[in-house]
Amino acid sequence: MTDILVSEVGPRDGLQSIERVMPLEAKKRWIAAEAAAGVKEIEVGSFVPPKLLPQMADTAELVAFAKGIEGLTVVTLVPNAKGAQLAADAGVHGMSIPFSMSETHSIKNVRKDHLAMLEEIRAAADIAREHGIHFAVGLSTAFGCTMEGAVSEDQVVRLAEKAAEAGALEFSLSDTTGYADPAQVRRLVKKVRGAVGDMLTTLHLHNTRGLGLANVVAGLEEGITTFDASLGGLGGCPFAPGASGNLVTEDLVLMLNSMGLRTGIDLEKLLKVRTIIEEALPGEPLYGFTPDAGPMLDYNQRTAA
Amino acid sequence: MTDILVSEVGPRDGLQSIERVMPLEAKKRWIAAEAAAGVKEIEVGSFVPPKLLPQMADTAELVAFAKGIEGLTVVTLVPNAKGAQLAADAGVHGMSIPFSMSETHSIKNVRKDHLAMLEEIRAAADIAREHGIHFAVGLSTAFGCTMEGAVSEDQVVRLAEKAAEAGALEFSLSDTTGYADPAQVRRLVKKVRGAVGDMLTTLHLHNTRGLGLANVVAGLEEGITTFDASLGGLGGCPFAPGASGNLVTEDLVLMLNSMGLRTGIDLEKLLKVRTIIEEALPGEPLYGFTPDAGPMLDYNQRTAA
Repeated sequence: MTDILVSEVGPRDGLQSIERVMPLEAKKRWIAAEAAAGVKEIEVGSFVPPKLLPQMADTAELVAFAKGIEGLTVVTLVPNAKGAQLAADAGVHGMSIPFSMSETHSIKNVRKDHLAMLEEIRAAADIAREHGIHFAVGLSTAFGCTMEGAVSEDQVVRLAEKAAEAGALEFSLSDTTGYADPAQVRRLVKKVRGAVGDMLTTLHLHNTRGLGLANVVAGLEEGITTFDASLGGLGGCPFAPGASGNLVTEDLVLMLNSMGLRTGIDLEKLLKVRTIIEEALPGEPLYGFTPDAGPMLDYNQRTAA
Repeated sequence: MTDILVSEVGPRDGLQSIERVMPLEAKKRWIAAEAAAGVKEIEVGSFVPPKLLPQMADTAELVAFAKGIEGLTVVTLVPNAKGAQLAADAGVHGMSIPFSMSETHSIKNVRKDHLAMLEEIRAAADIAREHGIHFAVGLSTAFGCTMEGAVSEDQVVRLAEKAAEAGALEFSLSDTTGYADPAQVRRLVKKVRGAVGDMLTTLHLHNTRGLGLANVVAGLEEGITTFDASLGGLGGCPFAPGASGNLVTEDLVLMLNSMGLRTGIDLEKLLKVRTIIEEALPGEPLYGFTPDAGPMLDYNQRTAA
């Protein structure tokens, strides 16, 4: 029984943001160790052209490997319909397409305006449906954009509706740029829920300004049940300048478990996974407070049975 | 008009936790600059024996200086009735006495059990009343103790009631050890409010496990109106091993202002105060995300008029 799904996005969002390529064997150890710690969903990579992101070139092999782990939901990012076909061929359980709410960011990031992206979403959704694959749309830059600044909340609602018509089965609100504040999280979740209902399940938050976990609390208040996070806070968005810093999986799990919410994740085991990244990417900056401080003395009393 | 009072405790909780003594002139510059940035209340020091904490030896001089700043509420910590008398002599606006909910921590920290502390509180309250000084009790280690582990919530409620009988006019719940989680914050605020009502105004949170701002959000949901914080996250509790890391004033102000809550604090001016600490205590580790990331591009649109 799980109350909250912690979806690990480090192998995708973390690794695509750093220059070095993590060896395939290290990625496999990372994924296997996190699954063994109780993580139920991992975004293992992205079906983007290897020329653009060589860090993600082994995504199909990772999907094959991760599918061998019992109970693990294996998802990948797909930037477009072409990527969706590759993901379907690889046999993913779920795929997620980012749809940037800032048209400037969308054009800069994937060279497509909103209308063109909606066509991609429709085509990708068709491919996913054909193969019985779960299909999610990530409403990225939903809380603001480093190029445009504020993003209209009404526009987010309208584009979510359009994406639902195009075949989205699930939505996340993505704070690509680390702009979200807790009041905005509550407001925007309410508004988007008003349009697409419980299809909005997920928050993808960054910790750029240290507000990541504060925004999680706001999301919990609004009934959000899935949170993306990256082990060690690895990564961010390479196309949003200055917007580094994913939510740290270790701190998120400490918080949720301490609150008595069931994540199914063993914190002690999770903390050990960090050494795999440290060994494979020596010197890479990792974040988080829990790895240094450790759990509270009464941690086990706080967690749900 | 202020919605939320941010009470700067760095000159006390920050400076008492580090070995070096900040020169009096630097402390004055710090206090004056924060007040100029709009900070309305500053805990300028602690009336403890200079032998124990030489960092606080100039507290009376700081009180005299800070009282010259118009509109600033000048508070100090007092460990006991003797300190309360010194604070009264110095002419503070308010004093706050820590009352450790963990008896082990209380004995270790101030060599007094709960009964002895209640006597000190009564004596200090009498002195404060006599001089027309506001008198607050900080319920420290309220969320757990690095020595005892869990602290009984019923015990916190009972001791708050006793402290109210002894003359407390206001309460804060202090997460001395960085143990609080957001569910616990909501639960404990509700319980203590049940006993002492609106006299509980304040949360003193640490960021040891990165949960500081998440706990602020939980406190806001429960109607807490005052939050302590330390510029640059300086300090912690020297008597709670491993419990470093105050809530960072810069990140707190960014969050509250972005949420549209009025703090009266100008973030841009506040961020510049940091250089005073950097110059006076070169090499001292400072924390916070906002000083690196800066405010969001649409920050001014988010803040209340």
